[in-house]
Amino acid sequence: MNRREFNLALLSSVPALYLPLVQSASQIRINGPRLNQHLSELAQFGKTPEGGTNRVAYSDLDLQARDYTMKLMRAANLEVSIDAAGNIISRRSGSNSSLKPLMIGSHIDSVPQGGSYDGQVGSMGAIEVAQTLAEKKIQLNHPLEVVIFQNEEGGTIGSAAISRGLTEKDLQVVSNSKKTIREGIKFIGGDPERLASVVRKRGDVAAYVELHIEQGGVLYQEKIDIGVVEGIVGVYWWEVTVEGFANHAGTTPMNQRRDALLAAAKYIEAVNRVVTSIPGRQVGTVGKIQAFPGAFNVIPGKVNTSLGLRDLDAAKVQLMFQKIQDEVRQIEASTGTKFEFKQVNASKPALTDPRIRSAIEDGAKELGFSTKLMPSGAGHDAQEIADLCPIGMIFIPSRDGISHSPREFSKPEDITNGANVLLQALMRLDSW
Amino acid sequence: MNRREFNLALLSSVPALYLPLVQSASQIRINGPRLNQHLSELAQFGKTPEGGTNRVAYSDLDLQARDYTMKLMRAANLEVSIDAAGNIISRRSGSNSSLKPLMIGSHIDSVPQGGSYDGQVGSMGAIEVAQTLAEKKIQLNHPLEVVIFQNEEGGTIGSAAISRGLTEKDLQVVSNSKKTIREGIKFIGGDPERLASVVRKRGDVAAYVELHIEQGGVLYQEKIDIGVVEGIVGVYWWEVTVEGFANHAGTTPMNQRRDALLAAAKYIEAVNRVVTSIPGRQVGTVGKIQAFPGAFNVIPGKVNTSLGLRDLDAAKVQLMFQKIQDEVRQIEASTGTKFEFKQVNASKPALTDPRIRSAIEDGAKELGFSTKLMPSGAGHDAQEIADLCPIGMIFIPSRDGISHSPREFSKPEDITNGANVLLQALMRLDSW
Repeated sequence: MNRREFNLALLSSVPALYLPLVQSASQIRINGPRLNQHLSELAQFGKTPEGGTNRVAYSDLDLQARDYTMKLMRAANLEVSIDAAGNIISRRSGSNSSLKPLMIGSHIDSVPQGGSYDGQVGSMGAIEVAQTLAEKKIQLNHPLEVVIFQNEEGGTIGSAAISRGLTEKDLQVVSNSKKTIREGIKFIGGDPERLASVVRKRGDVAAYVELHIEQGGVLYQEKIDIGVVEGIVGVYWWEVTVEGFANHAGTTPMNQRRDALLAAAKYIEAVNRVVTSIPGRQVGTVGKIQAFPGAFNVIPGKVNTSLGLRDLDAAKVQLMFQKIQDEVRQIEASTGTKFEFKQVNASKPALTDPRIRSAIEDGAKELGFSTKLMPSGAGHDAQEIADLCPIGMIFIPSRDGISHSPREFSKPEDITNGANVLLQALMRLDSW
Repeated sequence: MNRREFNLALLSSVPALYLPLVQSASQIRINGPRLNQHLSELAQFGKTPEGGTNRVAYSDLDLQARDYTMKLMRAANLEVSIDAAGNIISRRSGSNSSLKPLMIGSHIDSVPQGGSYDGQVGSMGAIEVAQTLAEKKIQLNHPLEVVIFQNEEGGTIGSAAISRGLTEKDLQVVSNSKKTIREGIKFIGGDPERLASVVRKRGDVAAYVELHIEQGGVLYQEKIDIGVVEGIVGVYWWEVTVEGFANHAGTTPMNQRRDALLAAAKYIEAVNRVVTSIPGRQVGTVGKIQAFPGAFNVIPGKVNTSLGLRDLDAAKVQLMFQKIQDEVRQIEASTGTKFEFKQVNASKPALTDPRIRSAIEDGAKELGFSTKLMPSGAGHDAQEIADLCPIGMIFIPSRDGISHSPREFSKPEDITNGANVLLQALMRLDSW
């Protein structure tokens, strides 16, 4: 439908009592100074000397920040509860109780020595949207859920608990707080024995929209206000082992060596060459390396390294992996070494819903913002929730593309813009 | 002098009482089976399931092996003492007490999880030579010293104590046994307070010859009996740091990265390219590497790695280092990274004495062995002793060139050959 039809649809769905006709949906704005004030207050829990935030899930600081967040939710007239998985679920009723809820939210836990924006902008932004609706006395057709997912940085644990359910193996993982996931869930008020109660079915949620910082430098460099996320890339990780032969670095002539580190160096260059030789926005990274025995005077006999490939298109990842394998066969032959790849992660791409993309795009345009369709290179709770319902994500610029660092920063006006786009998109989706 | 003159000179220097004219010097042979039996007995101290030897300096096993060695020395009629640095010094008088001693020997300590030949062949070989002289009732003109240097694998500590003297800093180093050098010296019967007493001056020793396994694969591959060492290569080590910028491996486009590990990979390839592009037997090795933070999902912001260069010619090492620096400047420019090189070792090359080389060569030829002039790529006690007197080294083949490994192996007949060449060379040098 076009904008005019949309607005009519929207208006027709909202009881006249709550939305004076003088104020159309597109004129409603969140309170930017208040939102930024909340972010600043939240950042006090775990503030580091470098200006970042150190607030890993299940820590005392996480608990304090959750209490603060629930206070904000209540102030926004949301009905707050903690589910058995430890997620903070807050609700606002809709005018049509037969509709499934629209869900917005994010997470407030950080990586160790992280920043004050990742997850936090989307969390405070979602609460601000709810508070704006409350203040403007706007009741949506759909019920609204504002959710703070627990332990996103430890592997989207809270959203996984809702979408696919946690396994016993998940619960035994030791998180950054040194607590196991099971202990952590108890610590933040959940009940690991009742986890089955939180798992939702496909269709239980109408749609999920998450506001987030980009965590990359594209919007910042190109001076674009809003990123409309076309999908969250699939993330594929391999542990890579290179076997050569350890020998004396002084007595072994160059042409008699089977140097595992020289082979690994050729491999690292090959990964970069393969990934950058194909058009597109795919990325490939070798992040880990260790040489054995790792001494000045011994030719490395073994190297443990890694491979990480990401793209929105799983077939392209497969193609890159195959090209890398082809190069590796040549490296093995020329260096007398043997490579092994063991896949340790394969999270498939999660595409956003085209209608939600349009709602975000239209909302942003309505507000006069420039937009760019882009992939999310990082994983997000939205990726888990994609198993339950159509999803969408809104990105705002990250200064210099820096994230997971005390130097992570987004401008207050960009944060305000992002929350306003979230509000606009939400009202558009409410007409579904 | 030619062979005939040499033999005449040799004979004229030996009292007729001890050397019946029917047996010329070149007809004397060491007892090969006994030598190999001693090596086998020595290998019991620290024998590992893999068939190697784990007998680091200053360990209980080192102490037991030293006791065993001193017993063999006494059986060879040598006068045994432990000097203040913990070296085992054994002597046999010469007919001319005004001459400085000829010195032979090696070490019996091993690297952790090492083999049963490195150092041990030269040590048992030197004792066997002395025992043969005793049995054959041959008295040399020069006094003979058979020396077992302590802690060669920990940095030629015992020979350095004699040649340059140990510093307080040396004494504080923690050795493979977990004892400091100071503690270790006490443990093996030395006296760290009297170290000045063991330092010798240039000229205090007439010559030093060391028998050793090659530790490389040249003699083995080329099926040559004896290596005549032309010098011990200089060993130059640098710690190398690469600074890039750590960022999210999912959200940072390929063209916005400053990947320290990609830069390190290019550097490792450059080292190999530079070292192999110059004619000669120089070697270059990158043995160490670590990437930070070292995670699948973070582009490495920092890499610690290394550089090791060795050659007989210090100027060639300087040339290679300069070429590597030139390549590094280009890598820095293309990857947005910064390299730093910190030199942590610079042991200069030690050339062997041409007259000792000839004595070894002539002795080997006399016995019908094939020989090859070659550098020693590994460091040895001889390198330290080169500061005191002319030195020479005799190499025997190492199977597959493997050393510092339980798979280190030299054939019994090669060991016997090496000790016979040591005996022949020694008798030739005695005429100096």
